Amino acid sequence: MRTDDKTFVDELRSLAKIEDPEVIREHLEGIRPEDLAEALPRLELQDGLAILQRMDEERAAYVLVELPNETVRAYLDELPDATVAHYLDVLPMDDAIEITEELSPERREAILQVIPEEDASEIERLLAYPDDSVGRRITEDFVRVRPEATTSDVLRDLREKPEQEYEMINDIYVLDDARHLLGVFSVRRLLRADPHSTANEMMMTDVISVPPDMHEEEAARLMARYGFYAMPIVDYRGRMLGIFTVDDAHEILEEADTQDVLALGAVSGDAEAYLSLSTLQLVKRRVPWLLGLFVAESLTGNVLRYYGQGGDSDLKLNPLAFFIPLLIGCGGNSGSQVTTTITRSLALGEIKSGDWLRIMRREMATALISGAILGAIGFVRTWLPVPILGWNMQPSLALVVGLTLPAIVLWATTVGSMLPIMAKRVGIDPAVMSAPFITTFVDATGLVIYFEIARRLIKM
Amino acid sequence: MRTDDKTFVDELRSLAKIEDPEVIREHLEGIRPEDLAEALPRLELQDGLAILQRMDEERAAYVLVELPNETVRAYLDELPDATVAHYLDVLPMDDAIEITEELSPERREAILQVIPEEDASEIERLLAYPDDSVGRRITEDFVRVRPEATTSDVLRDLREKPEQEYEMINDIYVLDDARHLLGVFSVRRLLRADPHSTANEMMMTDVISVPPDMHEEEAARLMARYGFYAMPIVDYRGRMLGIFTVDDAHEILEEADTQDVLALGAVSGDAEAYLSLSTLQLVKRRVPWLLGLFVAESLTGNVLRYYGQGGDSDLKLNPLAFFIPLLIGCGGNSGSQVTTTITRSLALGEIKSGDWLRIMRREMATALISGAILGAIGFVRTWLPVPILGWNMQPSLALVVGLTLPAIVLWATTVGSMLPIMAKRVGIDPAVMSAPFITTFVDATGLVIYFEIARRLIKM
Repeated sequence: MRTDDKTFVDELRSLAKIEDPEVIREHLEGIRPEDLAEALPRLELQDGLAILQRMDEERAAYVLVELPNETVRAYLDELPDATVAHYLDVLPMDDAIEITEELSPERREAILQVIPEEDASEIERLLAYPDDSVGRRITEDFVRVRPEATTSDVLRDLREKPEQEYEMINDIYVLDDARHLLGVFSVRRLLRADPHSTANEMMMTDVISVPPDMHEEEAARLMARYGFYAMPIVDYRGRMLGIFTVDDAHEILEEADTQDVLALGAVSGDAEAYLSLSTLQLVKRRVPWLLGLFVAESLTGNVLRYYGQGGDSDLKLNPLAFFIPLLIGCGGNSGSQVTTTITRSLALGEIKSGDWLRIMRREMATALISGAILGAIGFVRTWLPVPILGWNMQPSLALVVGLTLPAIVLWATTVGSMLPIMAKRVGIDPAVMSAPFITTFVDATGLVIYFEIARRLIKM
Repeated sequence: MRTDDKTFVDELRSLAKIEDPEVIREHLEGIRPEDLAEALPRLELQDGLAILQRMDEERAAYVLVELPNETVRAYLDELPDATVAHYLDVLPMDDAIEITEELSPERREAILQVIPEEDASEIERLLAYPDDSVGRRITEDFVRVRPEATTSDVLRDLREKPEQEYEMINDIYVLDDARHLLGVFSVRRLLRADPHSTANEMMMTDVISVPPDMHEEEAARLMARYGFYAMPIVDYRGRMLGIFTVDDAHEILEEADTQDVLALGAVSGDAEAYLSLSTLQLVKRRVPWLLGLFVAESLTGNVLRYYGQGGDSDLKLNPLAFFIPLLIGCGGNSGSQVTTTITRSLALGEIKSGDWLRIMRREMATALISGAILGAIGFVRTWLPVPILGWNMQPSLALVVGLTLPAIVLWATTVGSMLPIMAKRVGIDPAVMSAPFITTFVDATGLVIYFEIARRLIKM
């Protein structure tokens, strides 16, 4: 079962200092690749690399596959070509592709020349399928038999083939000589059949297959819909290329859901483990959206200016009011970005409530950078006496807006990151600390910040 | 493969009019339960029931299991006890439990008395596990052998056991006489083993198991983490109760993710297929949150009143401004509720872009009801000359607020439901039409509505 995370990370940190690979291998025996892959991103890059390189190569390769993509890229940058080539060599094809996808084109080419030619051309063939297509997830390790094979032929076949540890044999596929998929039967069916029955007699012909260029998410949803363990991938001429397995489908759906959740919260980019991203990467995934929404929210300010500075005295507004939607919008958006990110990471178990201090530090650093950018733009835009680009307001008001923006972003980010963690800690579903809830809370408190700053500065 | 949805639904509608079960059975031959279960909720209740009841009972039971819970409840209300008892009888235990969970306690008791006693007591035993625990997902159809069994014993066993179609035999569990789990080995291992090898020799003892009272989501995430196809469920005395299979894990994770997505968008309730919910049910899942946020947003109004009506003339605000955060908040919240719901349903394939007219009608009806409730409360609260409860503003302003609220909610809902569908239609990821994007868009346009209403009414 899973080891206690913090102790395990500390243990790894001290192991990294030990030169002798034997000690490391002995220590890590019996620990699953998935568990190691969860702990490694919490180490310094060099410590993680040290451990990976001193492990048994086959195990190291399986750990690498389970790591978050950001960490994989960081490790690959440091590993020598020969090591990477070895990893690719020991991995099943679908896992090897995942690693290859993270290499730069030049490096990929260099490494493909070092590994056995058969594997290299196989990898190149699979890489020819579009990004995110199910073709890239093809596993060629499936059991295929000819239609005239008898039960005893198939059993002998299974006994004699070299063992492959990571795939399954629940389904047996019946192919003709040209690799056309004719049907499928289960191992259970096989084990219960008469020794003289042929594959032809045992198979079901109503098989749901997918083409290699189908989007991986679509294929994964089909798999989930029908509750299959594997689906055959068949090209447009009816030839079976391999299978798509449920563990890949699971991973694809989890990532797709994460991406959707984040997009709904206005965070762009792929599904990446939260802790594997640097502060700068967090800023990059959030600021473009914040800026876009900032510009869009200026439109709201224009609506207020249009009515509030128009001729109708009943509608006349204090210019301070023009910025209310912009300010609460920025607070709400940055709050919902961080809440969404943290809630999803908590749900996936990538972070625990014990990580709160580390998260708060990261989030405050991120907020200071985003806040400073927004504040500078807000100041210039409010003050600038140039039509369209600026609003030509008095400098003191511009200063108020420029200072309130970073303050609100910092406040919203802190609240947005800590509330879900506190909820988790006291046993409430963190998702209940929903984005709208946090937005509303930040609205009220954010305006207090605004007016307190305004009260002090506006007279100057 | 999937039939063209609309044609298929129309076909079912005409089939429902045919009395002869034979015709229906023939027509539906070869169609998978999952595909039927997707189409049935789109029919009128009576049509769907007619088809279900004229199908072969075993198939009908499997279709029922795949239906959205709301539809299951509606059908169960109409089906006679004897039919339900038959369904429970033919289903595997984990599926039978899912149906039983939707029955009222009285009806459940009545039906359990009609089915074979062994099954009934089994169902009752599983229902004793907490709601949402993995114990309720136990499948007892797994292959168990004794440690001293040889390869040939196991093969003979597999051959002689009655066939069960829906489960798998990839893993073989080794139990002692007291049902303690000793280890596990794969069928592949079995098929490659020497005929005299014993289970004891073939098994791995490092097995990850889960206790029956573990939360189903936690168990499902463990399964996904390690890429397993099944996990043993073991009680606190080490006795194996059954297995938890990857198809259940998939379903659990999909529902958990849906619930998280909806909660982040401030929609409460379980994951239910969008089209299986009535307008009133949609209102019930949304209005409580809207009201809660409405009350919270009043706080923001109080902040504005405090500063804007305070002594500081620089901060003085037109009372119209007090309601800006409330109005854009309500627009944003109702918009983000519907965007989140629609985006998730699109991602799961529950709705298609061709459903837009049906969705728009439902959403507008929902918005009219929620808007009317919010508008009435908004009017009273703005006008009421009672401290704390009301704000004692002039009646014309109260009327403006009371009319703007439903208008904004209606507008936000329409935009929030149609934008993701339009995005999907033109091939953009609907999640990019994120809640913050829609919120911001609704902010600006909502304020135009506000000031246009105000301009006309405020003078009266």
